[in-house]
Order: sequence, then C-alpha cells, then structure tokens
Amino acid sequence: MTLIDNGVYVGGQRTDSPASLDETYELMRERGGMAWIGLYRPEVEDVLSVQREFGLHELAVEDALTGHQRSKLERYGETLFVVLRPARYLDDVEMVEFGELHVFVGPDFVVTVRHAESPNLAQARRRMEDNPDLLALGPQSVLYAILDQVVDEYAPVVAGLENDIDEIEDQLFRGDPEVSRRIYQLHREVMSSQRATQPLDGMLGGLELGAEKYQVPLELRRRLRDVHDHVLRVADRANGFRALLQNALTVNATLVAQRQNEDMKRISSWAAILFAPTLVGAVYGMNFRDMPELRWAWGYPFALAMMAAIAVGLYVAFKRNNWL
Amino acid sequence: MTLIDNGVYVGGQRTDSPASLDETYELMRERGGMAWIGLYRPEVEDVLSVQREFGLHELAVEDALTGHQRSKLERYGETLFVVLRPARYLDDVEMVEFGELHVFVGPDFVVTVRHAESPNLAQARRRMEDNPDLLALGPQSVLYAILDQVVDEYAPVVAGLENDIDEIEDQLFRGDPEVSRRIYQLHREVMSSQRATQPLDGMLGGLELGAEKYQVPLELRRRLRDVHDHVLRVADRANGFRALLQNALTVNATLVAQRQNEDMKRISSWAAILFAPTLVGAVYGMNFRDMPELRWAWGYPFALAMMAAIAVGLYVAFKRNNWL
Amino acid sequence: MTLIDNGVYVGGQRTDSPASLDETYELMRERGGMAWIGLYRPEVEDVLSVQREFGLHELAVEDALTGHQRSKLERYGETLFVVLRPARYLDDVEMVEFGELHVFVGPDFVVTVRHAESPNLAQARRRMEDNPDLLALGPQSVLYAILDQVVDEYAPVVAGLENDIDEIEDQLFRGDPEVSRRIYQLHREVMSSQRATQPLDGMLGGLELGAEKYQVPLELRRRLRDVHDHVLRVADRANGFRALLQNALTVNATLVAQRQNEDMKRISSWAAILFAPTLVGAVYGMNFRDMPELRWAWGYPFALAMMAAIAVGLYVAFKRNNWL
Amino acid sequence: MTLIDNGVYVGGQRTDSPASLDETYELMRERGGMAWIGLYRPEVEDVLSVQREFGLHELAVEDALTGHQRSKLERYGETLFVVLRPARYLDDVEMVEFGELHVFVGPDFVVTVRHAESPNLAQARRRMEDNPDLLALGPQSVLYAILDQVVDEYAPVVAGLENDIDEIEDQLFRGDPEVSRRIYQLHREVMSSQRATQPLDGMLGGLELGAEKYQVPLELRRRLRDVHDHVLRVADRANGFRALLQNALTVNATLVAQRQNEDMKRISSWAAILFAPTLVGAVYGMNFRDMPELRWAWGYPFALAMMAAIAVGLYVAFKRNNWL
Amino acid sequence: MTLIDNGVYVGGQRTDSPASLDETYELMRERGGMAWIGLYRPEVEDVLSVQREFGLHELAVEDALTGHQRSKLERYGETLFVVLRPARYLDDVEMVEFGELHVFVGPDFVVTVRHAESPNLAQARRRMEDNPDLLALGPQSVLYAILDQVVDEYAPVVAGLENDIDEIEDQLFRGDPEVSRRIYQLHREVMSSQRATQPLDGMLGGLELGAEKYQVPLELRRRLRDVHDHVLRVADRANGFRALLQNALTVNATLVAQRQNEDMKRISSWAAILFAPTLVGAVYGMNFRDMPELRWAWGYPFALAMMAAIAVGLYVAFKRNNWL
Repeated sequence: MTLIDNGVYVGGQRTDSPASLDETYELMRERGGMAWIGLYRPEVEDVLSVQREFGLHELAVEDALTGHQRSKLERYGETLFVVLRPARYLDDVEMVEFGELHVFVGPDFVVTVRHAESPNLAQARRRMEDNPDLLALGPQSVLYAILDQVVDEYAPVVAGLENDIDEIEDQLFRGDPEVSRRIYQLHREVMSSQRATQPLDGMLGGLELGAEKYQVPLELRRRLRDVHDHVLRVADRANGFRALLQNALTVNATLVAQRQNEDMKRISSWAAILFAPTLVGAVYGMNFRDMPELRWAWGYPFALAMMAAIAVGLYVAFKRNNWL
Repeated sequence: MTLIDNGVYVGGQRTDSPASLDETYELMRERGGMAWIGLYRPEVEDVLSVQREFGLHELAVEDALTGHQRSKLERYGETLFVVLRPARYLDDVEMVEFGELHVFVGPDFVVTVRHAESPNLAQARRRMEDNPDLLALGPQSVLYAILDQVVDEYAPVVAGLENDIDEIEDQLFRGDPEVSRRIYQLHREVMSSQRATQPLDGMLGGLELGAEKYQVPLELRRRLRDVHDHVLRVADRANGFRALLQNALTVNATLVAQRQNEDMKRISSWAAILFAPTLVGAVYGMNFRDMPELRWAWGYPFALAMMAAIAVGLYVAFKRNNWL
Repeated sequence: MTLIDNGVYVGGQRTDSPASLDETYELMRERGGMAWIGLYRPEVEDVLSVQREFGLHELAVEDALTGHQRSKLERYGETLFVVLRPARYLDDVEMVEFGELHVFVGPDFVVTVRHAESPNLAQARRRMEDNPDLLALGPQSVLYAILDQVVDEYAPVVAGLENDIDEIEDQLFRGDPEVSRRIYQLHREVMSSQRATQPLDGMLGGLELGAEKYQVPLELRRRLRDVHDHVLRVADRANGFRALLQNALTVNATLVAQRQNEDMKRISSWAAILFAPTLVGAVYGMNFRDMPELRWAWGYPFALAMMAAIAVGLYVAFKRNNWL
Repeated sequence: MTLIDNGVYVGGQRTDSPASLDETYELMRERGGMAWIGLYRPEVEDVLSVQREFGLHELAVEDALTGHQRSKLERYGETLFVVLRPARYLDDVEMVEFGELHVFVGPDFVVTVRHAESPNLAQARRRMEDNPDLLALGPQSVLYAILDQVVDEYAPVVAGLENDIDEIEDQLFRGDPEVSRRIYQLHREVMSSQRATQPLDGMLGGLELGAEKYQVPLELRRRLRDVHDHVLRVADRANGFRALLQNALTVNATLVAQRQNEDMKRISSWAAILFAPTLVGAVYGMNFRDMPELRWAWGYPFALAMMAAIAVGLYVAFKRNNWL
Repeated sequence: MTLIDNGVYVGGQRTDSPASLDETYELMRERGGMAWIGLYRPEVEDVLSVQREFGLHELAVEDALTGHQRSKLERYGETLFVVLRPARYLDDVEMVEFGELHVFVGPDFVVTVRHAESPNLAQARRRMEDNPDLLALGPQSVLYAILDQVVDEYAPVVAGLENDIDEIEDQLFRGDPEVSRRIYQLHREVMSSQRATQPLDGMLGGLELGAEKYQVPLELRRRLRDVHDHVLRVADRANGFRALLQNALTVNATLVAQRQNEDMKRISSWAAILFAPTLVGAVYGMNFRDMPELRWAWGYPFALAMMAAIAVGLYVAFKRNNWL
C-alpha cells in the first residue's frame, strides 16, 4: 500500500480522510481545503497522478522517482520541492542509515514521498493536528512540521555517534588494535551525516530569507528559526566529532609507536635474562687444561648459582627501570 | 572527417542536415533558423571559416585551437564561449580520462569543437530533437543540453572512483603493501576530477545570475538549476573522497606501525623458542669434573626432553599472550 | 529556593527587593520601574509564571526548560532571548565545566535562569547597582552587565588552559608517556570552550549592528564593543591553543620515534657487550687436538682477560659514539 | 647601459627611438605621443629624472629603488604603479628564480624598471608593435602586453615543477632516501611561486573592476580577462602541486615504515638461518657420558647435514612467506 | 621619569618642548597647536591627568592601564584609541619579544603610552619633524608615523625568524635530535607574531575605509596604504613560515624513521659479523668421536681462518649493500 495517510484540512481541522487520491482531489476542491497526502514507496502511477493534479514540474518528479538526491529546496513557481535525508542510528551495527524524503508543498497541498522507515511522519501529523492554530497557517506549517521531525530525529543519531566516540576513546588508551579501523569507519559515518545535514543550513537560511517575500506568518518564521538553530547544533557537533576523530587517529599512531617501544624494551630485557647465563656456560665450556674451578667440588653448583644470580640480577634491574 | 553532425533548426524542428559548412551558413540565413554545428578534431581551416561567418573573437578561437584550457565561460558581446572538461572512467587502468570540449553559443548558432570521444553529443542532440518545445527556445537550450550531457557523464566517473575507494578500504585493512601507492594515485585522480568540475559551480551560478539579465526563459533556468544541482552533488562526492583518502593514508601509517609491532613480537617469540634450549646445551657443555647428570644413564634423553619442554612451554605461553 | 535575587529599579536605583514573583510584578507596574529577576534552577511553575506575566514566547521557554542549548541570541518581538555558556576551570581535575544561563530581556524586565554555580551574577548586579547612570539605561544595560560577567569569567579558564599547555610542553620534551593522552584531553577541553564562546562573536556583532536600529545608547554600544573585544581575545587564544596542541601531537610522535631509536641503540650496545665475550668461549671450547693456548699455564686467565677486554672496549666505543 | 629600449608612439606607430631620456620627453611632447621607456637596473639618477618628468609619487619611486616588493598594483591619481614578480625555471638546480619588474603607467607614458633577465620585454614590445590597433589604445594596452608576457613566462615554470613532481613520484615509490629532502625543497619552491602569483588574481580582478570606471576599451578588457584566466590556471596548478607534495610526504613516511618492517623481517630471517644450526652444535657439544650419536661412524656428517637441513628448511620457509 | 618627549606643534613646526603635562595643555591651547605627548611606563596619575584634559573614554584608559590587549583600533567619538604590539627579535635567545603601545589620537593631540623598549618612537618623531608638510596634516599624520615605525620594526623580526628557519633546515637534514624542539618553539614564536600583526590588516583596512568619511588628506591615505602593504608582506611571510615549519615537522618524523632503519641495518650487520664465527665454534665444539678435522695439524688455524673469513666476507657484503 503506497497511500499511508491522507487528509483534507479546513481551517486547521481535519475534515476528511479519503481512501484514494482521486477522492482527495475532489474533496479538497469541494471544501476549499488543504490536502496532506502521505505516500510510501509509491507506484510510479500514483506519483504521476499527483503530478497531473497539482501541476508538479517534470524535473522535480523525475528527482522524486530516481532518488539519490542531496538535501535541497527548489522553488518551481508556487510549488516548493524539498528533498530531505532523514537519518536513523542502528545501534547493533553502529551505523547511520539514511532515508530520503521528498516533499511537494503547493498553495493548497502537501505531498510527501517517503522511501524509508524514518522519519516518523505520523508523529509530525499528530502533533500538527493537536495544534490546529498552527496547521491553519497552511501548507508551509506542514513543511515546518516535517522539517522539525526530520531534524529532531537527528538527535539520537548524534547521541549514538557521541557514544561511539566515547567508546573509541576508551579503546584508544587501552591499546585495542581494532581502534584504527573503528575510527576510520566512524569518521565515514560522521562525514555521511554531514553530507545529509549540511545543506539544511542553507535551505533554512533561504526559507527564512524568503519568508518576508512570501509573507510567511511571523509565528512560522520563529519556528523555522528554531529548527535552524537545531540544525546548527547538529552541524556543530558533527564538526566537533570530525576534529576529535582526526586527533584520535594521530594519537593512535603515537600510542602504537609508544607501545612498540615498550614491547621492544620488554623483549630485549627477557632476551638478556635468557642469554646472559650462557656466558657462564661459554666460560666453563672452554677446554683449557688449567681451569681450577672445574676441579672444585662445588664448581658445578657454583656455576649454576652464578647463572641464576645473573638472571635474577638482570630481572631486578629491568624491573627497577620499568623495562619489565 | 571533422564535421560530425550539422543541423539547421527552425522552431525546434530540424529542417536540413547540410553536408558542408558553407551550405549551412546559407541555409540558416535563408530559413531564418538556428545552426547547430558539431566539429570533431577540426582542421584549422574549418574553425577559421566558422570564426569568419559568426564573428567569433580571436582570443576564444585561439583557446579553442590551442586546447589545455580550464573549464570556463566567457561572454564576448552576444557570443558565449564555453570550455568543458568531460570525463570518462577507464576501468582497466583505473584512471579518469579528461577530454576537452569548446562550445560557441551565439544568437542563432551553436558550434561544438570536440577533441575526445566523450562527451556523447549525439545523444544530447537526439534528446533535444525529441523535445522540440525546448529546442525552440534557441541556442541557450542547446548549451543546456550539452552541459547536462557532460555533467551526466560525470556520474559513472564518480561511481568508478567510489568503487576504487571501496577496494582500497579492503586492501587497507587486509594489509596490502601496495595500498599506499594506490591511495596516492587515486587521490591524484580525484584532484584532477575536482579541477575539471569545480569551475562548473561558478559557471552555472553565473549563468543563473545572468539568466534574468539576458531574459533566459524560465523553463531553461530551471533546467540549468537542475544541472547545477548535479554538479554540486559531484563536487560533494569528490570532496568526500578526498577526505576519505586522506584518512586512509593516516590509518595506513598506523596500521603499518601496528603490523611492525606484531611482526616484532612474533619474531622475538620464535627467537626465544629457538634460543632457550641452547641454555640447556650451555649448561651440560661445561667441563666441570663433578657434574652428576652427565653420568646418569638417562642424562642425555633428560637434557633433550628439557630442551623440548622449554621450547613447547614458551610456545604455549606466547600463544596465550597472542604474540604468536 | 529558586528565587535568588529580585529587584525593582527606578531610574537606576533599587527601590524594592520583593520576596515573590507576584509581588515583583505588582511593584514594578506600580512604580513604572524595571524588574531584574534572578532564578536559580527554578521550578517549572516559576518559569511559567514569568512567561505568563511577560508574554515570553513558547519556544524560548521550552529551550530554557530543556537546556543543552548553544550560545545564541533570538529576538521575539520586543523580547530578547539569550543563551550563554559560562565556564569555570576546575583546577584539580584540569577540566572546564560549562554552565548554562538563559536570559530574557524585555522592555522593562530582565529574567535570568541559571543552572550552575557560574557565572557570579551577584557580582554583576552589585557592579550595576554601584553605577546607577548605566543601570538607568534600562534592561539592555543589565544584559551588558551579564555578558561582561560571563566573558570576564572566561579569563581564568583561558589562564588555566594556558597553564596546562605549559605543563604539557614540559612533559613533552621530558618524554612522559602520558603526554599523548593529556594532549588529547586538553584538546577536547579547548574544543568545548570554543563551542561555548564562538557563537558570542556573531551574537555581539549582531547586537552592535542592531544597536542603531533599536536606538541603544552610545555608551552601552561602546561597552558592548568592549565585551566583543574580550570575546575576540578569548577566541584568539583558543585558536592558538588548538594549533599548539596539534603541533605538540606531531612533535610527540616524532619524539617517541626518536626515543625508540635511542633505546634500540642502547639495547644493541649492551647486547654486543654481553655477546662478544662468548666468541672467545666458542673458540676455546673447540675440541681440536692441537690448540697450544689450551696448554699454556696462563691460558685460562688470558682468555678471561680477553673476554673482559672485548667487553670493556666495546663499552668505551659505544660511549664515544653516544650510543650508551 | 640602463636604457634598454625607448620608443615614442603616435597612433600605435613607433615614430622615434630616442637615445636619451631627455630627448624622449621632448619628442613625446612635440608629437603628442606616448613614451614607452624600458630601464634595466637603472642608475638612481635615471629613475629620479623619470620621476621629475612624469610626477611619479615618492612612495612608488622609493619602492622601485628598494625592491623586494610583493606583486601589487597601486593607483596614484592618474598613474598606476605595478610590481610584478616574473619567474624563470632553472633546470640544472631545479629552482625557480624570481625577478622583479616595476611598471609606471600614466596617461601618456609607460616606464618599466627591470632588475633581472626575465621577463622578455623585448618580445612584448615586438608583439605590440606588430599590432598597432591594440597599441593605439594607449598605455593601458602596454600594461596588458607586459602582464601577458609575465604570465606567459610562468608556463615553463609550472611545467618544470610538474616535471619535478613526476620525478619525485618515481623516487618515492622506488624508495630513494633523498626523496624527503627533495619534496621539502620543491614544496618551498611551489610556495614561493604562489607568493609571486597569488596577488595577481586580486590585481587583475581589480583592473577588470576599474575598467568600467576608467573607460578601458572593451577589447582590452577582454584581453585582461584572458590574462586573468591564465593566472587562475597557474594558481590552480600550484595549489594542486602543494596538495600532491603534501600527500607525497605522508606516503613517504608510510613507505619508510613499511620498508623498515620488510628489512626487519629479512634480517630476522637471516638471523634465524644463521643461528638455528648452533642448536645442533649445542646438543652435541654436551658432555653426557652416554650419547650414542657421538659414537656413530656417520655421527659427525649426520650432525653437519642436520645443520644444513635446518638452514635450508628455514630459508625455503621464509621465501614462501615472502620474508626473504 | 615617565614623560619621555613632549612637543607642541603649530603648522608642522615644533614651537615648544614643555617639561610637564600641565604646561603642555596650557601652551597648546594658547597657541592653538597640536600636542604630541610621549609617556613611558607612566604613573597612573599621569594617565588620569591626560584623561581629564582630553576627555578620554574610561574603557580606553582602563585598557591602557591594564595592558595585555590585542592590537586594535577603537573610535570613541572624535578620539581614536589604538593598541599596537611592537616586536623585537632577541638574537641570543632566538625569541621575539612583544611590547605594547597605546596611542590616543584626538583632534589636536596625540598621546603615546609605551611599556617596552620598542618601538623607537624618537625616530618616528624625528622623521616627522624633518617633514613639516606631513606633520602639518595633524594628529592623523602622527598616527601614520607611529604605525610606520612599528611596522618597519617588524622587518628585522621577520629576518630573524627566516634566519632561524634556514638554520633549522640545516639541522633537519643533518639529523640533529634537537630539531623537533626547535621547530616547535619557533612555530610558537611565529604564531605569537601572527597574533600581533594580523589585526593590523583589518585596522589599516578600516582606517583606509574611514579615510573618506573623516576627510583624511589624500597624501596620508597613500602613506597608510603603503604601511598596509608592508603589513601584508609581513603577514605573507609569517604564513609562509608556518607552512614551512609544518612541513619540517612532517619531514623530520620521516627522517627519524629513516635513520632508525639505517641504524637497525647497521646494528644487524655487526651482529651477524660478530655472531657468524661462533657457528664454526659450535661445529668444532661438538664431541663426536670421529671428527677428522680435529686431528688435522692445521685444524685449529684453519678454524680460526674460517671464522675470520666469514666475518670479513660478511663485512664486505654489507658494505656493498650499503648496510654499513
């Protein structure tokens, strides 16, 4: 089923919930109201029906059908075409999953085309229906509600990434050899998030600038500014994450070198402990005719004791130097 | 043959396909139509003929004949001179090949001078001829079609580079020693791509800004905006690639150090396993008169067993410590 | 107790210190004065009371109740909503603690909502009450006083960070293995500080720009410029810190490698000193029938002396080469 | 001789080639023409004569006499003072040599003060004299010709640097230990080139902007735009070179580490091959009374064979593992 | 003594050199001239006297008394307050010492408050007194003279830093282990210099912009532009220094690794030379009954010769491979 939710609104109140697109068109014209149509992975046919009814521009519809767009906002005459990249943090694989949402906003309609689970547009609709004064401001208020929802859903993504960074810092100073890979991959995720959210800054700035020209009500402008502020907060964090991960990479290289040095010292110490006793063996393995120790009754135990003493002595010395 | 395709268009319809340049000039004047002349590696003479006919500026013609230009757009009175750098991804050598395309756009003519296989201008022409309404908007619509074609052909290049990056990430974490070189070279390719595409942002921005002044039809402006959007997407990806490759370089340095450390541990472990038994040999090679073990019946097998035990013991210990 | 300090001012003089919010509203209307209300971790109810009385905007109040905002300044009609991130340097743990302060500035009131110990708003109030001419300029002068206080409190933070950097430089060249971690963590602190202070530059620039439009008295504008100058000084230092720490990271990596090299030389030298004498042992441990030295009376002492001589000779040689 | 070439031009045609400065002033006034005076390492006196005659500003003359200026363009009333940094690539030492050229452009004169071999101003003069229409546009056209010459002479510098980079890439992957030094030094050369060329972008932009105000003929404006385009191409390449060299530095660090690892493996392998046979020696050097092998007829050859077998076996194993 | 030099000027000529501040105020009013007062580490009282007389703003005076300001320029009504950071290169410790100079410029007075040896304001005063035409332009010309002096004194600082960088490059490629520290510290010095000089760019730009509004004479504007040009040259060099030092850091890390590798090879070579002869010892130290060599008359010399031959052979081989 591609038609998820479908409402006709008059003065901020939902008057109808038609079951088909054609019915919607009819009802909305009849009542002089606004249609808010929610499509989920629609058939090409449905999109074309919407295009015919509302006179959507060919290029915008093509984009909506092809997908893989950047976040953007384009104005075609009286219709706005908005592409958003909602995000969801997948805890189990520690990745960010990006969806894609296309929104057409006209003078008396809003059409959303969603291809992924997120964002939760039902919640956005519920919130708007609970606030009829705002909804009565028309399709622009619906656009605000959708932007707000998408941006709000970035918050758990940011929290997830921050959590990963905390874990990575632990791994880093604990010397986990997997940390390079994890830093690299998290960096990649952060970069994808930036790609999804960065255009929103310009988009919202543009909406605010255009607000005066297109006579957007003051209340809505304030709310857009609020969403903009949230976007900036997300962008801020993402920039911070990148800088932190970059530092973590550099620190990791140094720690690896440091650990190598420590390992080298430890290895050398043990090599010395193991090897030094053979020096005693080399001495008493010589075949000189006249080596008094060889004839001593306690010669052999004495030699063994010397071997042990050398080994223990070295061990103690290395311990003191923190080489072991 | 330098004259690839040559058409005279009236009201968006192709009326003639003259075989020579002179014929084209005549026909286009006769019918009051627009000429779209496609040259491929032309003789100097042909370019000069076009220059004389359409009054092209000396500097622009000089650039077209010399080649090795940056992407750029220059306005000489009523004529636009556009240089584009189409690209093609060569899968076998994993390199990006850049062509060079010069376009002269006047009030009633478009001349393209192509020096490489790409871009596929025949396809651009076909698409425009299938859309006479658009073509009827005049030479600017042809410029749009060419820009669109060139930018569309960047998509497989981006895909090819992305694919290479994926392969590089595999190599990176697998420890392939060739990965440094490959990262370096791919970085170089990405930088070349950026050099080819970056000026397009400013060019298209300039075209959009000039659109109002030069009364470009709204429909065409929208399409130019669409091309611009695709350019931004390409630029976006290329920037991302550079950042990823930069990270890959840093990570690689760390991984190399990490592997060195692991190798050092493995080598040291084997050295110890190999060396420790000689300690036994050194003891029983001593020449003390009074070494009871030497006279034991099982002395020799006991010594060998001790050697083996030490070696096996160390082996097990190192395995447990993950040094082996 | 959430109501920390509460004053009604007429002409720059404090006329009353009402004990409750309702009393304040009444007195201020009665006297035609300005209210300066200081709340500390207020109950939701108190905030809502203030909202009802002064007509604060829902979004601003929501932000104040939720917290975790960026530093920002938003204008809602005649009311300014300002979020500040005061900071305090905790010497014992070498960290920067960030508070959050929300300020509502209207035509005849200032409400501060504080959630942390800093900033010391009592001091800001005292300073303003000591300067009635300035205070008589109205709520904007109170905003200035608060900004001044917050920015002044950044100074000890900057000093604390600078002190840490000095310590880190000592550690760095002394070869302390903990220095990587400390650089990383201090970098994190510096980045947090930048996040808190950077928006202030734009905020104060905005206030200065708006000053003409909103007819802010010249004297106040100069003081805002002074605060702005201090903010720039803080930002300047923070940028410098980041660059220094970045360099320290790189230098540290090099120093670690350099020390590894020195350790390797030292280890190898000792290995040679320990091992070379065994060469003598290996020679005189051979079983040739005809080895004259073996029969010498002083053969054994001679061999031992040779061993010692080799070891001492190597020791001296290595010392001279600075390997030991 | 400081007066290199000296011409008086009327309507784009050279009418006189006076031998002295005073003669030039006279002739140019007499004929109402333009003077183009070329000085090479002039005496202070000559410069002062020019200053008196054309009313050049003291600060500009001071700059011209002192030298060591940045590329710049300054307007003193009707006179332009231009400093250019021509460059020449010295193939034998692989360095870029920078000259300094000062140009004074007034309403009816151009004075060039050259201190180095480059640029080839004779060629610029010849080209202008061959193009009287352009030269007839006055001193600004001479300035264009000089700029064009200087910028054209950057092309071989860029080519030389590019060639060096290609060589460096070869060295890099071949493991030449001198490559670090060469990258560092080439980087320095590239930075010097950027310092010389970067201000040209702003200068030419300024000239283009001022062109309308100062009524520069359209044809000249187009040619300045062409020079500007060449400057951008040079700047583009220089930026690319820096990025490439930066990458080469990083890659080099990794390759050095990688080679160290390979050397370590090779060394360890040979150490094992050399050492393992002594294990056999250690066993059969033990003094146990009852060691049957010692009495075997083929005991000794058997031991030698075992030694060889161990060495060969290790050699084969290491070869297979690519350690040797 | 805090009053260094004190002059009253009328029409560019010094008329008086009063010994006290009060005398100065009187004389300057009397003659309708300009006062140029030079204070050096003044008593608070003197500063307050100046403040009272010329109506200096409280915030500016506070800054002048506290010190530790950034370079800045602030306009308080008709009075300019300028903070400059003159610099001096201390050759013996290779550090840059920064002073602080406060200048108040009013319609008929200039007050300089100096806290360090530099800049040499006496020289600036002498130059202005030698140029009465310029001095007659009023206090702004004095400000120009001071800026010029301060900026001129940056030149030896830049030269000193450049000299250090040259030395560092020598150290770098000579392998001096102290070079990391020196690069780090020089980087710090360069950053401090940038902090001192960077605000001058904006300041001078601001002065130039304001020049038209405040009717600064053309001649003075040109001189300010000249100072600005010098500032840009200094900034340019400092940026270059930073980039060079950054590269030097990276190169150093690589060279350290490279040297480690060479040391490792050298050490391993000597280890092999030392160790390989023991293999011979191990063979002839075995106790097989039937070892023909042991009974050879020349067996022992043969074994010793073999040992020597192996050592020499390895030595030659390593020399050829450039390992030694």
